[in-house]
Amino acid sequence: MDTRRESDSIGEIEVPASAYWGAQTQRSIENFPFSSSERMPLPIVRALARVKLAAARANRAHGLDERLADAIEMAATEVVEGKLDDQFPLVIWQTGSGTQSNMNVNEVIAGRANEILAGQRGGKSPVHPNDHVNRGQSSNDSFPTALHVAAVVTVEDVLVPALDRLTASLDAKAKAWTDIVKIGRTHLQDATPLTLGQEFSGYVQQLRDAYQRIRDAEKGALRLAQGGTAVGTGLNAPQGFGEAVAADLAEQTGKAFVKAPNTFEALASNDALVQLSGTLSTLAVALTKIANDIRLLGSGPRSGLGELDLPANEPGSSIMPGKVNPTQCEMLTMVAAQVIGNHQAVTVGGLQGAFELNVFKPMIGAAVIRSIELLATGMTSFAERCVDGIEPNRGRIAELLERSLMLVTALAPEIGYDNAARIAKHAHAKGQTLREAALELGLVDDATFDRLVRPETMV
Amino acid sequence: MDTRRESDSIGEIEVPASAYWGAQTQRSIENFPFSSSERMPLPIVRALARVKLAAARANRAHGLDERLADAIEMAATEVVEGKLDDQFPLVIWQTGSGTQSNMNVNEVIAGRANEILAGQRGGKSPVHPNDHVNRGQSSNDSFPTALHVAAVVTVEDVLVPALDRLTASLDAKAKAWTDIVKIGRTHLQDATPLTLGQEFSGYVQQLRDAYQRIRDAEKGALRLAQGGTAVGTGLNAPQGFGEAVAADLAEQTGKAFVKAPNTFEALASNDALVQLSGTLSTLAVALTKIANDIRLLGSGPRSGLGELDLPANEPGSSIMPGKVNPTQCEMLTMVAAQVIGNHQAVTVGGLQGAFELNVFKPMIGAAVIRSIELLATGMTSFAERCVDGIEPNRGRIAELLERSLMLVTALAPEIGYDNAARIAKHAHAKGQTLREAALELGLVDDATFDRLVRPETMV
Amino acid sequence: MDTRRESDSIGEIEVPASAYWGAQTQRSIENFPFSSSERMPLPIVRALARVKLAAARANRAHGLDERLADAIEMAATEVVEGKLDDQFPLVIWQTGSGTQSNMNVNEVIAGRANEILAGQRGGKSPVHPNDHVNRGQSSNDSFPTALHVAAVVTVEDVLVPALDRLTASLDAKAKAWTDIVKIGRTHLQDATPLTLGQEFSGYVQQLRDAYQRIRDAEKGALRLAQGGTAVGTGLNAPQGFGEAVAADLAEQTGKAFVKAPNTFEALASNDALVQLSGTLSTLAVALTKIANDIRLLGSGPRSGLGELDLPANEPGSSIMPGKVNPTQCEMLTMVAAQVIGNHQAVTVGGLQGAFELNVFKPMIGAAVIRSIELLATGMTSFAERCVDGIEPNRGRIAELLERSLMLVTALAPEIGYDNAARIAKHAHAKGQTLREAALELGLVDDATFDRLVRPETMV
Amino acid sequence: MDTRRESDSIGEIEVPASAYWGAQTQRSIENFPFSSSERMPLPIVRALARVKLAAARANRAHGLDERLADAIEMAATEVVEGKLDDQFPLVIWQTGSGTQSNMNVNEVIAGRANEILAGQRGGKSPVHPNDHVNRGQSSNDSFPTALHVAAVVTVEDVLVPALDRLTASLDAKAKAWTDIVKIGRTHLQDATPLTLGQEFSGYVQQLRDAYQRIRDAEKGALRLAQGGTAVGTGLNAPQGFGEAVAADLAEQTGKAFVKAPNTFEALASNDALVQLSGTLSTLAVALTKIANDIRLLGSGPRSGLGELDLPANEPGSSIMPGKVNPTQCEMLTMVAAQVIGNHQAVTVGGLQGAFELNVFKPMIGAAVIRSIELLATGMTSFAERCVDGIEPNRGRIAELLERSLMLVTALAPEIGYDNAARIAKHAHAKGQTLREAALELGLVDDATFDRLVRPETMV
Repeated sequence: MDTRRESDSIGEIEVPASAYWGAQTQRSIENFPFSSSERMPLPIVRALARVKLAAARANRAHGLDERLADAIEMAATEVVEGKLDDQFPLVIWQTGSGTQSNMNVNEVIAGRANEILAGQRGGKSPVHPNDHVNRGQSSNDSFPTALHVAAVVTVEDVLVPALDRLTASLDAKAKAWTDIVKIGRTHLQDATPLTLGQEFSGYVQQLRDAYQRIRDAEKGALRLAQGGTAVGTGLNAPQGFGEAVAADLAEQTGKAFVKAPNTFEALASNDALVQLSGTLSTLAVALTKIANDIRLLGSGPRSGLGELDLPANEPGSSIMPGKVNPTQCEMLTMVAAQVIGNHQAVTVGGLQGAFELNVFKPMIGAAVIRSIELLATGMTSFAERCVDGIEPNRGRIAELLERSLMLVTALAPEIGYDNAARIAKHAHAKGQTLREAALELGLVDDATFDRLVRPETMV
Repeated sequence: MDTRRESDSIGEIEVPASAYWGAQTQRSIENFPFSSSERMPLPIVRALARVKLAAARANRAHGLDERLADAIEMAATEVVEGKLDDQFPLVIWQTGSGTQSNMNVNEVIAGRANEILAGQRGGKSPVHPNDHVNRGQSSNDSFPTALHVAAVVTVEDVLVPALDRLTASLDAKAKAWTDIVKIGRTHLQDATPLTLGQEFSGYVQQLRDAYQRIRDAEKGALRLAQGGTAVGTGLNAPQGFGEAVAADLAEQTGKAFVKAPNTFEALASNDALVQLSGTLSTLAVALTKIANDIRLLGSGPRSGLGELDLPANEPGSSIMPGKVNPTQCEMLTMVAAQVIGNHQAVTVGGLQGAFELNVFKPMIGAAVIRSIELLATGMTSFAERCVDGIEPNRGRIAELLERSLMLVTALAPEIGYDNAARIAKHAHAKGQTLREAALELGLVDDATFDRLVRPETMV
Repeated sequence: MDTRRESDSIGEIEVPASAYWGAQTQRSIENFPFSSSERMPLPIVRALARVKLAAARANRAHGLDERLADAIEMAATEVVEGKLDDQFPLVIWQTGSGTQSNMNVNEVIAGRANEILAGQRGGKSPVHPNDHVNRGQSSNDSFPTALHVAAVVTVEDVLVPALDRLTASLDAKAKAWTDIVKIGRTHLQDATPLTLGQEFSGYVQQLRDAYQRIRDAEKGALRLAQGGTAVGTGLNAPQGFGEAVAADLAEQTGKAFVKAPNTFEALASNDALVQLSGTLSTLAVALTKIANDIRLLGSGPRSGLGELDLPANEPGSSIMPGKVNPTQCEMLTMVAAQVIGNHQAVTVGGLQGAFELNVFKPMIGAAVIRSIELLATGMTSFAERCVDGIEPNRGRIAELLERSLMLVTALAPEIGYDNAARIAKHAHAKGQTLREAALELGLVDDATFDRLVRPETMV
Repeated sequence: MDTRRESDSIGEIEVPASAYWGAQTQRSIENFPFSSSERMPLPIVRALARVKLAAARANRAHGLDERLADAIEMAATEVVEGKLDDQFPLVIWQTGSGTQSNMNVNEVIAGRANEILAGQRGGKSPVHPNDHVNRGQSSNDSFPTALHVAAVVTVEDVLVPALDRLTASLDAKAKAWTDIVKIGRTHLQDATPLTLGQEFSGYVQQLRDAYQRIRDAEKGALRLAQGGTAVGTGLNAPQGFGEAVAADLAEQTGKAFVKAPNTFEALASNDALVQLSGTLSTLAVALTKIANDIRLLGSGPRSGLGELDLPANEPGSSIMPGKVNPTQCEMLTMVAAQVIGNHQAVTVGGLQGAFELNVFKPMIGAAVIRSIELLATGMTSFAERCVDGIEPNRGRIAELLERSLMLVTALAPEIGYDNAARIAKHAHAKGQTLREAALELGLVDDATFDRLVRPETMV
């Protein structure tokens, strides 16, 4: 492989001639030999490039040469647009400040800008990765800024649409099924009736609440560390730099980014991402409940509850011919488990920061982005390939409702809890219907029974 | 022991003659033989009594005999006031709907009301635990209502004041120490300076953000399940019952309770408590960071960082005479670990609900209440016995600042990152001061050094 | 309240006259004002007293006055026997080394020994809490020793018998039901048959494996820190002290305690307890699976799977008369959730120790003991009040088996997977039996069907 | 793109002409549209191919045509050797039994075998993916078998060598530094001395214990589900098939695989992997402690503890010239956090299985494999790039030791704890040395002080 020589404060190092990156990126490749499946997620890389773009614009007012600024902006834009995706080989597992990924972006932008300006890829001149691309910045403020940008952008552009999609799918079912009265179940035991639409309306509410929680949690991620530089004081950043970068990022993305009210907190803690991750975990909890209900209601076809028919997307078994399984439910609950686990990782990282910098940032950022993407793809797929195609099994639903002993609850206000309990227990013991038991015990007459025990009025 | 005979739908059972409770409570005592340290937390019991009080008032408009209502309200008020605390022997580990704790409250209120009305403790007449005290309710809506009431009341009346207390204590330090310039530390390595006040201002911001997150999370807990009865349909509850009870609870407590917009969700999910618990976990993360910083800054007295003197509250060692330890920090970080663990328990419970009812409610409620109380006592104690009494060790702080090599950062905009790095490395290798190294390398003159390398202007 | 004056290196303090404890205990009561439900678990207190007993015996050979030793041993024995339980008011949330609980035990034993010897409760003479009771020890080795002793003793004497009890109960069912052929379910969907005994044999195996894992994990807890004193070097402990104490503790308890092979590890890490806690968490996972299966199999009575009848221990609902719920399953799964959460707390504590001492010991110890006790009571109760009384519903089981389409699997080796799938799908679509579909499609004749599709030979 | 038509029981579907896979793989690609970074880990794919290889060998004795068997074995071997890695596009997030990955392997082996035998890639003839490649198997036993094989192989061949490497590296330091007496620290506060070698010996012990725990946990993973087929009964598998496959896998890999003692448990639970994952989490806890200690001891260079010099692998800061950070420690602790989080995901998956099959297997398997690989690469890198190169800063260590007040502990046995405490407190208050304070207070004479207070004899 052709190489060229690059240098940093540690010394010289060989870099592939084709690479835009420089010494520090190369050093990190060698120092952290994890597999390529562990690469820093691209949304974070691109968000870093957005920071560099915004910084170059802000630095124009503070002495950055126009020609250099032009080239930096051009190169940064290429990274944002995904044209240089293969130039970011670094993995999540590196320095805890993300310095190396920040330098990877600095070096690639400098390396590409130098190619634009001087025809030679890489190097530090005329554009220097630190002095020009990283100007006014530190990894300590740029990297958390990028994490927040990446998180908000993926939440709004990827997660929220998927959440809306699933909410709409469930809501359509809730509205379509308002007339299907079915047995309720509490403790997995027969209870009083409700409509299938009501049951699904609960799922819709869970997701609507999840949406509101995500909006609340997102507020913290809209506050950016930029402007704090190394320890939060803003040393070496011009006055107003953080505000200018935040405003530019807001303009670039259409999200309401602002400079954090306290940059010391913004570097030293990742609480905003911990809370966002926790809120994703709550969503995962809700999705597990919904998917579990749906697969239980769809259990069967002949020996389960069988109230719902789920779409048959693929053969279910390599040995049992004709088997069909609730695979979208299984996918979604596995995704949820991983999201809950990721939140634990984020929590462990969040609590260990010391002094002016939390050094678990790459892990936290990568885990949050993975959780967001898993949830988004999972919810969309679940909506499209499962919920949309669910059909109620009306015959089965009616059959189960009719048998129920818990319709006796409607008698309790009239004959008292203790007498109503006697009827239910009598019917259960004798294998009778409620009516038979009620009449046999003489606790109610036919007309009263007819008046009170009407499932359709009990919902 | 003297006993009397009580009965329920399972049959008859002996109850201590002195007890106000009835058959179902007694049965639960025998069915779940956990130790008394596992009792259902009193804030939940009292919140249930508030529900009964509100329900009795609402039921007056729907046919509940005035005399019975008077007695129920009187008895419920006694429970709310803590006069009957010893009448609630049931443990957390019972039915997952909290039915037995709900019946414990129903039975004790009925038993006390019967004593008031008829002179005889216990029993079901004239006041019946189900037909009168539990009227219009189910455990399935009353118990989650009580959990929300207990959570909001303890959050607002116990947690928030403690959080405010600690915030104020840290803020006083942040404001008092604005002039103390000190070495910053990132990656635990020397970095550029900041003031001690700035460092503490980051902690203050963490807690202010935590406050806002708790307020956001609390919104979900302000929505009450009451009115849903058994499965969310409100069967056997009068029209407007849920709204009336919520309004009454709001009046009783001064908190903005309302009926949940969807009662199916309110019974079947505990997402609001999962989110609240997650938000407590984020607070625990923040507290861990703060307490860890403080104990590291206070490490020593002679072989640590020694920038802060923490109050000496007790002898620190049974073997090392004169030792003093950061015990309040240790207490607070242990509390935080348990809160983080409790959130995991709540998460595992939250995701397993099936159909119309999540049956992990007592565990979830008890864990949330314990987390709130641990955090509250922990923060108050930490503020009073640690933060308030912290003194900066100005001599030590100045000594460490002076030695720092990272002041070189201020030279970078003038002489470039690479040259500045050479100075720092040279000084480190030779054991020189920055000035010595800078002059020896000829990269800057004395006057420039004086102009740029001034810690007090670097913050 | 009558008080007396006690002192420590901080100064003097008033102590209740009736208390055996001294200045340091009193100071801790005031410094950590948590509620009494947060007290240090008694098994830990008693294990500490066992350590003091063993230490006094060992110290006789190294100059401890016989008279003092006699009194210390007498007093320590009283604590072990639970005669002084009310003398240990300290809470879990204290110094992270457990120093204050160690001093509580030192002071109470000294205070009681002084009463025995001099007729006056409390004080430091003739028996001094540090110089005599704590002789040769530090909290840093005594407290983790006590945690290990408490953990092993409760595991062996409380947890293992409960685990055995539940294993035996499930095994009795597995053996009683070897002839009941039932539908299998994978993905909650109908699958090929097995016997109910086989299904329960899987649960038995889960618990047997859990037993072996606990035995493996326990090995770490059998190694005691005693002899390491303050930092692991054993300063101020006589030669052979750790070995002698371990041998004495082994004799006292009948458990195979030995001195840890490396006392530095034994103070600085709690990995052995983290692993034990993780193993309890695996058991909790197994119990959740078992309890969830049982409640699903017992779901109904008319609209669920209904294959098992669970014991009806109490009325299930405050509003639905006659309802019976799987409350023991609910209790056990709630316990499991808390144990899983506690493991997270223990993990967070375990990873934060610094240098020569992990300072999350009281939280870790208390969480492990609580998990053990919850699991033990939960399993015993579940065995006695649920599993023992389960009855199979043979009619229902047979009915579900007969309908199954997955018996078609037995045809696949003969007619191929694809043809067998056609039969199953045809039968499902037409509402036919497998035989009807097989014959209609002409893929198999009657005799072949009879030969191959026999559930009783498919298990 | 060129395609060919393949079919399964759902119908026909277009497959890329170049692909070896068939209809079910193609369907899964379309049904689970996750990004390619979410692919099923290759160790699991290859382990599945090992199962197919073993099964083909076993099936020869039970009627599998020799010619087909030869081709299946040849194709399976190619997969094991990694020659067809690009033929496994399926993601983790699929059916919870791993059926689709099992079918992917079945189809690719059949598709390749058909190419070998008939010159045409893909299809079902002469080799059928189900009837021949999957013969005697179900996904329900093959997939968990593959997870166990993959886990054991990566544990033994990847994790254990890395653990050994790090243990040896730390042990070399422990042995090299037996003569360096340093200050001990408990509660982060100065304590009695120990040697640097002793301190590191504690880390060595932690890792040796971790090794033993992994060996214990691995025992469960050595037991294979194979032979259980669909629900554990072994339907359609020849007598002795599970034993034969396990023996073959043992021979292939050199690991002691055996058939599980109870196949019902082996399908329905993933407890063995939960325990293995928990044991990896304990290792992560230990690594966090070790890495945290090392970075604290290496903190500085001028304002930290500075007892160790860590290797400078890369420039540490994009803004602070000359800064060097403990990046290997940061990488390792981030890895540890993710492993702890993954364990939570595994736990959540493990507890949710129902009846005859746990359907969180792909998530559990992928999380365990990722944890193993992260830990292995992390430990090796940490050993090579950090621990190996650590140098003690002897001057600094000696300086800190001399100042210490906790050497007073050595006086306690002679003058009593209370007097010793007076000396330490006096010295601290007056800024004196211990000797100065001791003499000034008249509690000890010069000669006694010299005799007792000798750090080198206190270790």
